[in-house]
Amino acid sequence: MRKSEMKDRSRLIAAAMQKIPCDLTVENVKLVNVFTGEIYPASVDVLDGYVVRVREAGQTTAQPSRRVYDGEGRYLIPGFIDTHMHCESTMMIPENMSRAIVPWGTTTVCTDPHEIGNVMGLSGVRFMLENGRKSALRHYVLAPSCVPAVPALEGAGASFTHTEVAELLDSEDVVGVAEIMDYVGVYNDDRRMHEIIDEGVKRDVLLQGHSPMASGKELAAYLVGGPCTDHESGSAEEVREKLRNGMHINLRASSIADALKHELEGCMDHRFHDNVSVCTDDVHAKDLLEKGHINSVVRKMIQLGVEPVDAIKMATLNAAREYNFKDLGAIAPGYIADMQLVDALDGNRPDAVFIRGELVARRGEYLGHDDPAPAPEMPNTVNMPQITCPEDFLLRAPEGCGDRVKVLVMIRTPESIIKTGEWVELPVMDGCVSLEGHDDLHFVCIANRYGAGDKSIAVLRCFGLREGAMATTISHDSHNFTVVYRDIESAYACAEEMKRVGGGMCAAKGGKVISTLALPVAGLMSYHPCEEVSREIEQTQSVMASLCDNSFSILALVVFALPVLPGYILTDRGMVDGLSQKFVDIFQN
Amino acid sequence: MRKSEMKDRSRLIAAAMQKIPCDLTVENVKLVNVFTGEIYPASVDVLDGYVVRVREAGQTTAQPSRRVYDGEGRYLIPGFIDTHMHCESTMMIPENMSRAIVPWGTTTVCTDPHEIGNVMGLSGVRFMLENGRKSALRHYVLAPSCVPAVPALEGAGASFTHTEVAELLDSEDVVGVAEIMDYVGVYNDDRRMHEIIDEGVKRDVLLQGHSPMASGKELAAYLVGGPCTDHESGSAEEVREKLRNGMHINLRASSIADALKHELEGCMDHRFHDNVSVCTDDVHAKDLLEKGHINSVVRKMIQLGVEPVDAIKMATLNAAREYNFKDLGAIAPGYIADMQLVDALDGNRPDAVFIRGELVARRGEYLGHDDPAPAPEMPNTVNMPQITCPEDFLLRAPEGCGDRVKVLVMIRTPESIIKTGEWVELPVMDGCVSLEGHDDLHFVCIANRYGAGDKSIAVLRCFGLREGAMATTISHDSHNFTVVYRDIESAYACAEEMKRVGGGMCAAKGGKVISTLALPVAGLMSYHPCEEVSREIEQTQSVMASLCDNSFSILALVVFALPVLPGYILTDRGMVDGLSQKFVDIFQN
Repeated sequence: MRKSEMKDRSRLIAAAMQKIPCDLTVENVKLVNVFTGEIYPASVDVLDGYVVRVREAGQTTAQPSRRVYDGEGRYLIPGFIDTHMHCESTMMIPENMSRAIVPWGTTTVCTDPHEIGNVMGLSGVRFMLENGRKSALRHYVLAPSCVPAVPALEGAGASFTHTEVAELLDSEDVVGVAEIMDYVGVYNDDRRMHEIIDEGVKRDVLLQGHSPMASGKELAAYLVGGPCTDHESGSAEEVREKLRNGMHINLRASSIADALKHELEGCMDHRFHDNVSVCTDDVHAKDLLEKGHINSVVRKMIQLGVEPVDAIKMATLNAAREYNFKDLGAIAPGYIADMQLVDALDGNRPDAVFIRGELVARRGEYLGHDDPAPAPEMPNTVNMPQITCPEDFLLRAPEGCGDRVKVLVMIRTPESIIKTGEWVELPVMDGCVSLEGHDDLHFVCIANRYGAGDKSIAVLRCFGLREGAMATTISHDSHNFTVVYRDIESAYACAEEMKRVGGGMCAAKGGKVISTLALPVAGLMSYHPCEEVSREIEQTQSVMASLCDNSFSILALVVFALPVLPGYILTDRGMVDGLSQKFVDIFQN
Repeated sequence: MRKSEMKDRSRLIAAAMQKIPCDLTVENVKLVNVFTGEIYPASVDVLDGYVVRVREAGQTTAQPSRRVYDGEGRYLIPGFIDTHMHCESTMMIPENMSRAIVPWGTTTVCTDPHEIGNVMGLSGVRFMLENGRKSALRHYVLAPSCVPAVPALEGAGASFTHTEVAELLDSEDVVGVAEIMDYVGVYNDDRRMHEIIDEGVKRDVLLQGHSPMASGKELAAYLVGGPCTDHESGSAEEVREKLRNGMHINLRASSIADALKHELEGCMDHRFHDNVSVCTDDVHAKDLLEKGHINSVVRKMIQLGVEPVDAIKMATLNAAREYNFKDLGAIAPGYIADMQLVDALDGNRPDAVFIRGELVARRGEYLGHDDPAPAPEMPNTVNMPQITCPEDFLLRAPEGCGDRVKVLVMIRTPESIIKTGEWVELPVMDGCVSLEGHDDLHFVCIANRYGAGDKSIAVLRCFGLREGAMATTISHDSHNFTVVYRDIESAYACAEEMKRVGGGMCAAKGGKVISTLALPVAGLMSYHPCEEVSREIEQTQSVMASLCDNSFSILALVVFALPVLPGYILTDRGMVDGLSQKFVDIFQN
């Protein structure tokens, strides 16, 4: 849990009474007061990382601070808080992510490390916690609640029961139970979810929800079951129903989902907005570089007509209150001095960012005094004994089916990540399904990469892959090796490459690797900083796209195996009907 | 601390999913939603005391509840929460207070039992906790922080250090550290206050403030010292400064202080009001009978122009959030079903009140199924070995002063409870000060009633007491025996009467008691119900007034000894200058 920070109150009292000097005064600012909504000239005195006093115009002090920072008349607003995000989605390790987002004014993130949790279990989550402490950003973690997402249907690198969740909740800087995605498990009162939620209830920490489309009786059941927030509302009606039912809504603008306009329509005509804060969920390195982080959500909200002080309050005080952080989210005596100077209340890049009263970014440049020790070298997590030769990627037809077989083909339309299905009769050659004559089809294989030996292969109509293969070890949420291919030699080359570099993404053609994005940290993250990661991703994306006829996106590649989606899903154990959560046979005799 | 109530989530989930019936549906209501500010038709399903679901118009259930209560189109609002009050001020024990206030729509009170704490210590506070559990009202207690108010200046029946506060904070239903009145102690960083606050910080409970007139550097010092709320602001400017500095303001309308109009001026033009809730602090039995409780504050606010839904939110959800009660203050799935049906949003008496889904009041009649066992008989707390004869009430003049002496007379104007001083030359007879020729003066004696043997006597110009004496064992905050008198026989008669009945108030004339209000519970509270207590108080007040020329009020009688007031104060140890907190000599040679 988050330790109630035992500040040295005696020193702060002495400083407030002007008996000892403060460390810093940020003077000559227009303070944005998120308690009252007022904006007025002020100076802010800071000691030991805490605000000691906010002096309004005309209030002087007999005890000048050791340092003075001239705000030059800019607005001073609290540092932004991201209420829900996955560091892994940036493909950076926490310390590098921090360096990328702090210059945009974010000073606290609450991350759900469930990607690395699925791959490496507790040791992965601990790596995130520890690495997150190296840089200036206040990096809180929530205990992943759904590792793996649906245990019966997929093989992950780890499995969390309430025991692991409890152990994490008792760790420093762990502030809640992360998005409780198994909403069906909650309203069916499954034992696993019930016991995990119990651990959060016992400790009185945030039970973060995740309940897309939940409504009516299911929404009520989810709420009495424990979770109390949501960041998955796609429509105004959904936001409104959830707010009426007491949920705290995290307005989301992520790199892969942005229903902000609709979400705002569902709440901005309400009289009260205390239960609204913001999050980015999944944000890509490129977006971080170009658009920013929480500031970018705030900017969009303002562009959509939200009053700037309302948007700022949602991104600061409301977020802190959601987590019951009593010393974050505002600039007032006793609050941690996380704050930013901005030229205008428009969500653009701040001029300066302070964390605990330290100047940590100026005009986009990160200035944190970080721990210079290199991040630990992480073990290679790609372990696939079942893949030893190209033939392992052949799709064997059922015995005695003759020379043709009806196959349930997964179909993906570019508009959606949900896959429908269609029965297609395909030729059988040497006992294996062939795609000859079906240029629009390709194979997809999900291979367990944690030594369990499972793999399953299906046929897909998706990207219009013309030739070769493309593979990833980012594959939500179990992150098994996932390869889409036209020829087995290229698929095999990808598998070998992923084993070699410890995971990531790659493309192959004619049995040879033509591009690799190495993500050696759990097969999910790079050690490289934001600019480099962003460039590498773009290059990989463009090589992959060059193999395809249809629109290609990395996002589409990484959600084949997500069994919480409706529609058809392929896991390392077979094809699953997401709605019924049952395995289905892909062959029809 | 407050136990995180471990509700049976499985049953609630089953009820939400319509697999088992709910206990109760309150149907046909206009729901006031304090999350959004909306009002719309709804039905509320309740099981095990929790709201399971709020069904909007048209949403039916396949599983009818066991009972249905027809709201007849009335508004359904959450039960009110009093964020700060002293039960002792009602002169009733908790169970009787509960019966008086629940019919007015209050369902939760957070009380500071510091009066009984000063008299009886921990055992007194425990009596309040236990007696409070006998009736329907949710009675939370805060650990008194200033017992006695100023230890060096007065003798109380108990003294709390951090040890006692810690023990209380670890008790069930204790939800915070009660009003930290020794604000000078906080900003001087006195050890006693520092250690007491530490106990609250460790347990992350509310640190309730009390800082009248605190401003500028002192306010900042108070805030970094820990306390974070206030209910003592007398002016708009004070409210505004405190809100800007992040304090949670409890708007107060008590029987003895009502600056609501000014307080509202200091906050209602703000954009946000999340940090505003309401309290009654001290409310008298008569006011409870005639005007109500929190509803009366809400009514006044509405009359002063506050939007009804804003006022209702302040009296419900904002109050719950101040204390971090996550399941109180709203009507939504998972919340405790404390709610009231009202004819209009005007703060008048509700038609029906529910606590935990039980109908506990209807049209003013209390219907709770209370524990019928009588309250325990409390020990007599009036122990004054130093009072054995009328002559003990003589004010001895300094030796060798001759037949006249200059005396520092305490002066009270009817407008204020603060006493100024004036030097008056008085005759000395038989070595004692005489009031002969000074019909406007009377004596006042404060006698320790906890066996310590201290007493002090002074001269007063206050009520225009013509004859006799009037006495009280309610005398803030140490509650020593306090008597105002013209003749020592009457003073002595009062002392004997208070010893006999275990405290209370009485009046005497010609050495004979003419009226007694017995308050045998710690000399502060009666065992009688509200109507009776109210009648008895009124009778005593009228007899006391009949002895006086000037305006008489019981309130003025009970604040002679309060050493946190500025001006002159008389404690059992002598006359004190409140500002300097030093003893002063009442004689001048």
